[in-house]
Amino acid sequence: MKSYRIALVPGDGIGRDVTDAAWQVLERAARGAGFGLEGTAFPWSCAHYKETGAMMPDDGIATLRGFDSILLGAVGWPAQVPDNVSLHGLLLPIRKAFVQYANVRPHRLLPGVVGPLRKTEFDILCIRENTEGEYAGAGGRVHRGGPDEVAVETSVFTRKGVERILRFGFEQARRRTGRLASVTKSNAQKYSMVFWDEITEALAPEYPDVTVTSYHIDAMAARMVMAPESLDVVVASNLFGDILTDLGAAIQGGLGYAASANLVPDLSAPSMFEPVHGSAPDIAHLGIANPIAAIWSGAMMLEHLGEQAAADAIMAAISATTARGIGTVQGREKTGEITAAVLAALG
Amino acid sequence: MKSYRIALVPGDGIGRDVTDAAWQVLERAARGAGFGLEGTAFPWSCAHYKETGAMMPDDGIATLRGFDSILLGAVGWPAQVPDNVSLHGLLLPIRKAFVQYANVRPHRLLPGVVGPLRKTEFDILCIRENTEGEYAGAGGRVHRGGPDEVAVETSVFTRKGVERILRFGFEQARRRTGRLASVTKSNAQKYSMVFWDEITEALAPEYPDVTVTSYHIDAMAARMVMAPESLDVVVASNLFGDILTDLGAAIQGGLGYAASANLVPDLSAPSMFEPVHGSAPDIAHLGIANPIAAIWSGAMMLEHLGEQAAADAIMAAISATTARGIGTVQGREKTGEITAAVLAALG
Ligand SMILES: CC(C)[C@H](C(=O)O)[C@@H](O)C(=O)O
Ligand SMILES: CC(C)[C@H](C(=O)O)[C@@H](O)C(=O)O
Repeated sequence: MKSYRIALVPGDGIGRDVTDAAWQVLERAARGAGFGLEGTAFPWSCAHYKETGAMMPDDGIATLRGFDSILLGAVGWPAQVPDNVSLHGLLLPIRKAFVQYANVRPHRLLPGVVGPLRKTEFDILCIRENTEGEYAGAGGRVHRGGPDEVAVETSVFTRKGVERILRFGFEQARRRTGRLASVTKSNAQKYSMVFWDEITEALAPEYPDVTVTSYHIDAMAARMVMAPESLDVVVASNLFGDILTDLGAAIQGGLGYAASANLVPDLSAPSMFEPVHGSAPDIAHLGIANPIAAIWSGAMMLEHLGEQAAADAIMAAISATTARGIGTVQGREKTGEITAAVLAALG
Repeated sequence: MKSYRIALVPGDGIGRDVTDAAWQVLERAARGAGFGLEGTAFPWSCAHYKETGAMMPDDGIATLRGFDSILLGAVGWPAQVPDNVSLHGLLLPIRKAFVQYANVRPHRLLPGVVGPLRKTEFDILCIRENTEGEYAGAGGRVHRGGPDEVAVETSVFTRKGVERILRFGFEQARRRTGRLASVTKSNAQKYSMVFWDEITEALAPEYPDVTVTSYHIDAMAARMVMAPESLDVVVASNLFGDILTDLGAAIQGGLGYAASANLVPDLSAPSMFEPVHGSAPDIAHLGIANPIAAIWSGAMMLEHLGEQAAADAIMAAISATTARGIGTVQGREKTGEITAAVLAALG
């Protein structure tokens, strides 16, 4: 029997609750489809930091490299450990070390979920560059603390980095409706964003079956709210993708439904799957976190591993659950009830 | 009789249609309130560029300095003149030369306007930093055209620039409900955005009557869609404010209703008032542009000039117009009909 080795990194807060739920569903789906999942859990988290002084051990990345995929919950417990320590000590190093350059996030309404928009028919796949750009971490401050202090933060875009995320976008568009939206702000950022636009134009002839349109980030944010049905695949830089995917999560009813994949498209290293939501310390371990985003992320993992039938079965089970009104009322989610309903629908 | 000297810069495309409409309304309101408006029109635009090689003459800024305020339509005609030439030759130099550092944009639903959200009760005042930050224009490209090319774009935040926009935000919050939301992304941009957060914290004790909350830009974008009623004054950097105000325009029903002021709070130079929308060349001069955003911007101008009663009268006339369903059906706007209705409501 085929079997996959999965690294489980539940992390902090509700990350643990939802990873637990997702893992139950994944195991059931694997059993149903006739393949194995071998999970190894790692306790890396803010609690781990308080104990050991590090979010993960020095050989953490080397350890993860041996796995087929990583399933992550959420990282952060700001009251205990500053975000810049926790995120820069666990989540972001994994994305960077394995060059998980394509952060993929689907945005559509599950049956029974009432979103904030009047419009309900949309199916957007956002692709966010995940390794460089506005979050490159380059910058500094001069005249610190004085009246003339200046802080600079430099976005760094490489041709290699931009080209590979755009190619990934073109390929996803080709697999869907052939429409790709590329998001920049080239009328105000004339180095980075003009560069991105130039590369988009240079690549377009290689994908004659794809229609690519450039939008400015401000116009795209408005479009996601006013005409989400007009969009299919949306590709954007690290920051712009970060913003658009939270907006995407909003229009699909909230972070409880927002799944994501941090992909290494050439499979040279493990990809990571995680709900978009954070650790929500205030509701940790109360059994009221919505596990759907984590379960959906798990389905994306199976799809990435090549187990399409099992992934489809999970998505059908999620839809069957929300269609019954389970997991659809904000503030009334019960982690156990939702998980049980998805498991039951899986059969 | 008190009189104000207004520089009219209709610019391109529908900018001309809507400035014309707004000016009619402003003149009527001034007459009603007993003050004078003396308008001087400048033909600076892409057409002007084609004729003269410049978007405005060399002494354009010096000329504008003599006016009490500037009323601008829209700038740009991408098919004729690239945006980086037109915008960087007219709109952006005015904002920068006069240090119009506070870009103020109100977002609420006018009566009769159906927005994209199910929620309809919100009243947000967005304040965007307008002179530096992510649109500082600093950057460059190395290994140009080659496989190893790198483009960098540097955001520049000065203490002076951040402090003054935050103070303006605190003051606006004080005049309204006392709630200020400050928008950053300090967990991913640790120089610029941490700097902004530090200054926010340092200023807060000076405004004990204001409650300030920090949000990340991604969470704020989601909040504007999911819980817009929870927001009052929102202050953000140049880029983040740019994005949030287009989103604000979206939730208020579209760019047809989005007004803006580029303010010089200490009155040391003229402020500029402009609808947020662009020049929309495709519908220029067809008489179907919605002039409400331009008229509303004109009302903001009167308020800034100290003519509150006339500003209020215009806002009441706009509301009376949209409440009758005039100017509220996307794609069926008639510039003349809407203007006539606002004029009639003004009496
Ligand atoms: C927590 C934060 C660093 C992270 C990001 O911006 O990448 C999050 O917002 C996300 O979208 O995954
Ligand atoms: C046209 C463009 C440069 C401008 C900006 O980003 O400032 C516009 O988007 C705006 O919001 O006023």
